[in-house]
Amino acid sequence: MAIELFELHGLNGRRYSLYSWRARMALAHKGLTFESRPVKITDKAAIAFSGQTRVPILRDGATVVSDSWKIAEHLERVYPERPSLFGGAGGHALARFVNAWADRPLVAAVVPCLMLDNVAALEADDAAYLRAVIEKASGKTLEALAEDRAASLKGFAKLLDPVRATLRAQDFLSGAGPGYADYIVFSVLQWARVASATPVLPADDALWSWFERVLDAHDGVGRAEPARRLRV
Amino acid sequence: MAIELFELHGLNGRRYSLYSWRARMALAHKGLTFESRPVKITDKAAIAFSGQTRVPILRDGATVVSDSWKIAEHLERVYPERPSLFGGAGGHALARFVNAWADRPLVAAVVPCLMLDNVAALEADDAAYLRAVIEKASGKTLEALAEDRAASLKGFAKLLDPVRATLRAQDFLSGAGPGYADYIVFSVLQWARVASATPVLPADDALWSWFERVLDAHDGVGRAEPARRLRV
Repeated sequence: MAIELFELHGLNGRRYSLYSWRARMALAHKGLTFESRPVKITDKAAIAFSGQTRVPILRDGATVVSDSWKIAEHLERVYPERPSLFGGAGGHALARFVNAWADRPLVAAVVPCLMLDNVAALEADDAAYLRAVIEKASGKTLEALAEDRAASLKGFAKLLDPVRATLRAQDFLSGAGPGYADYIVFSVLQWARVASATPVLPADDALWSWFERVLDAHDGVGRAEPARRLRV
Repeated sequence: MAIELFELHGLNGRRYSLYSWRARMALAHKGLTFESRPVKITDKAAIAFSGQTRVPILRDGATVVSDSWKIAEHLERVYPERPSLFGGAGGHALARFVNAWADRPLVAAVVPCLMLDNVAALEADDAAYLRAVIEKASGKTLEALAEDRAASLKGFAKLLDPVRATLRAQDFLSGAGPGYADYIVFSVLQWARVASATPVLPADDALWSWFERVLDAHDGVGRAEPARRLRV
């Protein structure tokens, strides 16, 4: 039975979820084909089988795995003969740190900049649901968050300094080739690329050349997803 | 010929330099003994042989290595049969990211909190030199920086959130046992422990139990250095 990935989709079938991109890139890295099962945020019935309320969810034979980090660990454990996502035990352990760092503070810094564009790319019920969640958590309307965009993006760019410093010494965070740590950080910029017409980094940012390399990896699976903005 | 480590020392022979601690812990991890060569910041003649102006410097036979990161890479490359600092290629690559993240923003956040205490633990010429360097870089007196301590420490504690998140899932950043990524973050808290009487994290911070584990590692080489404050 084919591997299935239950993942969010927006208008025109856009795959905007950064967590879904982590799973997609991990599957591509392992050379595993899968069937995408588009799910709306509000369609909890579609994923009731999993006992979970959030996507992405991977169904691999009899195994159901929820959470992008656990999906990566599942793929590494079950398909050890395929290219490694972590590059050994040390890389596995530190990828967990990169995952934690990316989710907070990195994703937190970019949510205010992207969410207004993001909900505009969703069907009405998903847009209303996501708007309510973010506005409740932040105590601000998405429009007010978007007004802070310039300051938020400055903070976002600064948070990425250690990534830039690392990439001055090696082609990928994971070393000579891309690995799961790259997909973690990539997923944030891929979310921006798919969901928003506003660039989240300056055009001359050194990170773009790395981002392009990851977009091209694994037969360009990242680049195959249409960009909403013109930059890449 | 014994391995030599040229490293900063303060009053009473205190080893306060965080970069020196990274090298010390890396040597201990490899089970390598070494002779410590104390150097003052202002004594450039003592390290003129190296062609460098900054410590730590490792002299290992005919090889001279400057910079804590390069020292770690040297030890991993030259002593591959001893316990690995990185846990494989993936861990090596991501330790570079941890190194960049620790130096900026992490060390940058704690410098204002520690520097006044730190210069008080140095001989007069080193204290004057270090004071001038930091005051020129920050545009503030050390006393003014110390006044911002509460806010700086709040930022410092928050920056460590991804470390706390990682350590909820594993005993060390590097996995089941300590590795170079642990020593990088450890070095910052060890600097605080040796140089300052003011705790840099709340007493109930979850990181202390990890810090204690690293202090105890390798026959307690970290703990053997006297603490200036009472916390540990």
